Amino acid sequence: MSNFENLIEGYYRFRGTEWQKERERWTELAAGQSPKVMIIACSDSRVDPSTIFGTHPGEVFVVRNVANLVPPCENGGGYHGVSAAIEFAVTKLKVEEIVVLGHGACGGVNAALTGSLADSVHGDGGFVLDWIGLLDEARDKVVAEHGTGPEGQRALEEECVRVSIANMMTFPFISERVDAGKLKLRGAVFAIADGKLRVLEGERFANA
Amino acid sequence: MSNFENLIEGYYRFRGTEWQKERERWTELAAGQSPKVMIIACSDSRVDPSTIFGTHPGEVFVVRNVANLVPPCENGGGYHGVSAAIEFAVTKLKVEEIVVLGHGACGGVNAALTGSLADSVHGDGGFVLDWIGLLDEARDKVVAEHGTGPEGQRALEEECVRVSIANMMTFPFISERVDAGKLKLRGAVFAIADGKLRVLEGERFANA
Amino acid sequence: MSNFENLIEGYYRFRGTEWQKERERWTELAAGQSPKVMIIACSDSRVDPSTIFGTHPGEVFVVRNVANLVPPCENGGGYHGVSAAIEFAVTKLKVEEIVVLGHGACGGVNAALTGSLADSVHGDGGFVLDWIGLLDEARDKVVAEHGTGPEGQRALEEECVRVSIANMMTFPFISERVDAGKLKLRGAVFAIADGKLRVLEGERFANA
Amino acid sequence: MSNFENLIEGYYRFRGTEWQKERERWTELAAGQSPKVMIIACSDSRVDPSTIFGTHPGEVFVVRNVANLVPPCENGGGYHGVSAAIEFAVTKLKVEEIVVLGHGACGGVNAALTGSLADSVHGDGGFVLDWIGLLDEARDKVVAEHGTGPEGQRALEEECVRVSIANMMTFPFISERVDAGKLKLRGAVFAIADGKLRVLEGERFANA
Repeated sequence: MSNFENLIEGYYRFRGTEWQKERERWTELAAGQSPKVMIIACSDSRVDPSTIFGTHPGEVFVVRNVANLVPPCENGGGYHGVSAAIEFAVTKLKVEEIVVLGHGACGGVNAALTGSLADSVHGDGGFVLDWIGLLDEARDKVVAEHGTGPEGQRALEEECVRVSIANMMTFPFISERVDAGKLKLRGAVFAIADGKLRVLEGERFANA
Repeated sequence: MSNFENLIEGYYRFRGTEWQKERERWTELAAGQSPKVMIIACSDSRVDPSTIFGTHPGEVFVVRNVANLVPPCENGGGYHGVSAAIEFAVTKLKVEEIVVLGHGACGGVNAALTGSLADSVHGDGGFVLDWIGLLDEARDKVVAEHGTGPEGQRALEEECVRVSIANMMTFPFISERVDAGKLKLRGAVFAIADGKLRVLEGERFANA
Repeated sequence: MSNFENLIEGYYRFRGTEWQKERERWTELAAGQSPKVMIIACSDSRVDPSTIFGTHPGEVFVVRNVANLVPPCENGGGYHGVSAAIEFAVTKLKVEEIVVLGHGACGGVNAALTGSLADSVHGDGGFVLDWIGLLDEARDKVVAEHGTGPEGQRALEEECVRVSIANMMTFPFISERVDAGKLKLRGAVFAIADGKLRVLEGERFANA
Repeated sequence: MSNFENLIEGYYRFRGTEWQKERERWTELAAGQSPKVMIIACSDSRVDPSTIFGTHPGEVFVVRNVANLVPPCENGGGYHGVSAAIEFAVTKLKVEEIVVLGHGACGGVNAALTGSLADSVHGDGGFVLDWIGLLDEARDKVVAEHGTGPEGQRALEEECVRVSIANMMTFPFISERVDAGKLKLRGAVFAIADGKLRVLEGERFANA
């Protein structure tokens, strides 16, 4: 049996049980979404935010990409997927909070930390290399202080969340609303192995 | 209570129940991920793929952005988030299937269909406008045949999935593996209102 | 919502739960059926034999018609649905037992008992009148002894099971196998109100 | 243990669990049935409609015979079991929908398709041969187009449902109600092997 067939079987379970139990909810949702929170999480198969936060359909607008990264504001042309999603969530859906969710054992962060993809070409790591270039500055700082081992990995996972938050602040439609108290930017890191969630409080991360 | 606080409460529930029940599974997952499937879904709060397909942690590598779009291969510099995610999934994780999951009542598709964001500037719809420019050609074809009403919306939601699949085939590392039978590209559309899942079979969509 | 839609929702439940749990069983069943028992039951919505006997897919071959009746063997042309089903079950599937399941509060039996459909024309009770003509002889005997009230109803429900068994014995392919000990004919009556099952033991019915 | 004994054990389970849980429901049902739907299904042991549609006691009036066939209206004398059941359901119980449920791997359909029972005598396939004569015309059409292999089998299973629906329309008490919008005739085919349900929508069957 192929994997897609497994997904279809999963769909039948969902359609035959949960969907039916919340039928009215789904009918309402068909009319439109009005989430109050946006989450930016990693594509990693182990860190589904709806699982980790126990959310329900309609509650969170979600972007997922490698290493939960937000690029800085760039006004040139081109396809800016994350910028489009943030703009839609903030200016159209008017979400009140954006949570950047990092995680332990992140492959993208590890590649940034160790330089394992240096000199890779497009099609064999090069696109990932370009993308995690967003972490270059943070990486240098972390390596100088913590090295490239487990301690460096954890530090860069946290720093990566700070980078995405800082980059969000370069979008005027974000910084204006944050300054006006209409939007809050949050950070957290989920540490797969022991299931701990560390939350950004001011300058530092602490267990939830 | 703020919305982020709700998420933290949800995390405590997850940590206190599901995480504990599958503690061994999480310990294994901490060592690494090996998903066989990648899903590209919309950021829309109503279409969480792990809910719709009933998947478990570790099973699917997920990208979510506005309108579940994949841009064509562009080898210039810049931050190509979707390209990086696909490259990582295909060349590093060696997933065997990539599923593009569209959905009913998609706001991004609707903006493309109706031109409601035309002339928008960055910060007020302009980033979304640039992004859904990926649908321009498909939009013209759909509008000519189905108009800009509900029928056009449904047609463009399906066409949008086809566009992402076609764009994926412009990446050499994808087309080579598809041609060699090592990778399959799938499409599906989840129609929130009645819970139906339509699956791309050859040229057309049919109920699962 | 129409009733057929309810059935479809029920199908989704079945497909998403029970079908999946017994997936291997269904794969085996697709290759062919080999039930050991045939049941002849009433079309009445209250007496589903798989519910009453807790049977699983593949276990019982089932005929359902008004008043669980078997006509006598008629070798002229025409569409003999019950005869075809019995012939298929006995000579092709080689079932080892045939159970006639009557039930309390049977509308067909009541019409036979009270003559409420006498003189009805086809399209307004006439087809039912013809069909329950199979009970004419039994009815006369029961009414003479028990009248047309509740006692007569219960007596005719039991007699109806005996009629079907007697008619089955007019089919040579049945009587031969019964005489050879290869086939057993059974009778039972399910009394909806108190949930009792009365079973034919020799000449008389007794609680299971 | 004999097979009938298994049924009796199953009855005890039913009586000791489900019946008790819904005791009030059964008390109500003892007063009379008022189903809104009639189902015409095959006698095949694998396609119990209450299982496939997840229905409860009192909900559906059920006819089961070989290949879920309805003969055309015949006003001559004789025992017309299916006609009696339809007449009772439509004119007495006033059901609003009649569903013809076909299924995959149907032995009756296969015999019609392949002519495997041709020249059979009563008692050794002849009754079945007469009965599936109802499919002669449909069979010729299907064989010409699809042959007698798996494709022909699936086509005739679907065509068989259409034949039963067409034959129902030859009963004036049916066609009048259908024309007046008081009765709907539905068709579906359950494909045992993969658990898919195909539903007749207008002229063609599509997945539910």
